[in-house]
Amino acid sequence: MDILDYVARRSELVNRALDVMLPGEDNAPQVLHEAMRYSVLPGGKRIRPVLAMAAAEAVGKTPDSVLPLAAALECVHAYSLIHDDLPAMDNDDLRRGKPTVHKVFGEAIAILAGDALLTLAFELLSSPETVRVYRPERVLVVIGELARAAGSHALVGGQAVDILSEGKQVDLKTVDYIVRAKTGALIRAALVCGAVLAGGNHEQVELLGRYGTDLGIMFQIKDDILDIEGDPAKMGKAACKDESRGKATYPGLLGPERAKEMIRGLVASSLEALRPFGDAARPLALLSRFVAERVH
Amino acid sequence: MDILDYVARRSELVNRALDVMLPGEDNAPQVLHEAMRYSVLPGGKRIRPVLAMAAAEAVGKTPDSVLPLAAALECVHAYSLIHDDLPAMDNDDLRRGKPTVHKVFGEAIAILAGDALLTLAFELLSSPETVRVYRPERVLVVIGELARAAGSHALVGGQAVDILSEGKQVDLKTVDYIVRAKTGALIRAALVCGAVLAGGNHEQVELLGRYGTDLGIMFQIKDDILDIEGDPAKMGKAACKDESRGKATYPGLLGPERAKEMIRGLVASSLEALRPFGDAARPLALLSRFVAERVH
Repeated sequence: MDILDYVARRSELVNRALDVMLPGEDNAPQVLHEAMRYSVLPGGKRIRPVLAMAAAEAVGKTPDSVLPLAAALECVHAYSLIHDDLPAMDNDDLRRGKPTVHKVFGEAIAILAGDALLTLAFELLSSPETVRVYRPERVLVVIGELARAAGSHALVGGQAVDILSEGKQVDLKTVDYIVRAKTGALIRAALVCGAVLAGGNHEQVELLGRYGTDLGIMFQIKDDILDIEGDPAKMGKAACKDESRGKATYPGLLGPERAKEMIRGLVASSLEALRPFGDAARPLALLSRFVAERVH
Repeated sequence: MDILDYVARRSELVNRALDVMLPGEDNAPQVLHEAMRYSVLPGGKRIRPVLAMAAAEAVGKTPDSVLPLAAALECVHAYSLIHDDLPAMDNDDLRRGKPTVHKVFGEAIAILAGDALLTLAFELLSSPETVRVYRPERVLVVIGELARAAGSHALVGGQAVDILSEGKQVDLKTVDYIVRAKTGALIRAALVCGAVLAGGNHEQVELLGRYGTDLGIMFQIKDDILDIEGDPAKMGKAACKDESRGKATYPGLLGPERAKEMIRGLVASSLEALRPFGDAARPLALLSRFVAERVH
């Protein structure tokens, strides 16, 4: 199995679903829907949706069985990027090689487009089409998991601590909190929600949650290493942004070598959690290596 | 029945529920949770939660049977106020007589506190406690209604058009869209969701939705009249804000007399929708008059 090909095919599924599930640009208010689509389409690697689909496969379902969840995860991710990029937050001009939403549409519309995408995630998950396909009890568990992963103790909390820590001397414990809350929680939720929606049993959900926790931390450490060592042209954003704005990261605090050691440990631990799934989790195993070894 | 006393007792129920359901200020990140609680507690009139509880009563349940919904509605309302008040939006310094969230906690935390409150609404509705009490199918309908009422075709869409219309010559059609989307949709959702969660049948939900649509428009027209004629000390905010920032409103476009006529028509129409409920809808009938006649 070629994992790049696997990711490309799964991303294509998500892209098509998002194109249909996001309101069209001709919907009023047009500029708001343009901004929402601008931020989500064509988009990045779709890691979270791909993970949710791979989790569904690990418990024996097809990837397209969790498409509304996959789309919802990407809406939450896109919303968090729009708000993170705002002048009052990270004040970024460039994202995925394009001007950020507030640069193109202005700050007010950027805030509102983020708000609308977060809201849309919950609309997609509770839509009548979803409810016809899945057991309502499971959909409610998924909504709860997603809300917690996006909430003040996870995604939003991590971003708050990240912003408050900027330019300050920050210890490892704080970096660990930021990584787990800001990045780890939503990646873990992608796995857990994919498994729950696809009918996984308690043990399967638990194991995929552990895999997701490892992968989330690994994903962020790799991101931070790429920020230091990566090729700005391939990244679609400036290099060494973290250092220049005084953001504390694992590689920044421990040095890149120890950070890479951490990644190797997390890959091993993530693969361990997949063992009981056998071949059904082969894509997830490859995804773990893919995340650890990507160059942008 | 004294409607002021009724509203006060119901608000007290909601305030106690919110105090428990909002994360404590000692939860990390503290400043984020302080900002969330600052914006929600002790709060305003709790119109949306009171309406949801009254809808539950109209279909034969007790008001406390829909408390998680009542709290969720207030979280969505508080989030929308925080984001509306931001410098990039309405740039307001004062809300309910207190400095706005971004004035006290800064812009970044204000954006994040709003994000977290919107997310918390969906967490509350999907929490295991909720799911133990209500039929999951009904909870999912409620989540869908709330998400649509808060989304890009309603609350967020209305705010976008409101912002984009500022200082421009705006016609009645646009004002009507803004009022229905920005204020009407969430008030209608309070009624519909209250009725659905409390087990109301299709016809009851439909009638209460019609009542809610009338009430939502009436509520906003009254707000706009109070902005022109009200006592700033009682309002907790400056008077004639709409005119000074060139916002188009019904009383602004039609004059206060015709706007008051509209209110009388909406009161009559809202009462009409309540007729089949008999005495069970007495609080809702009084609330309609209360909203139309309030002085702040």
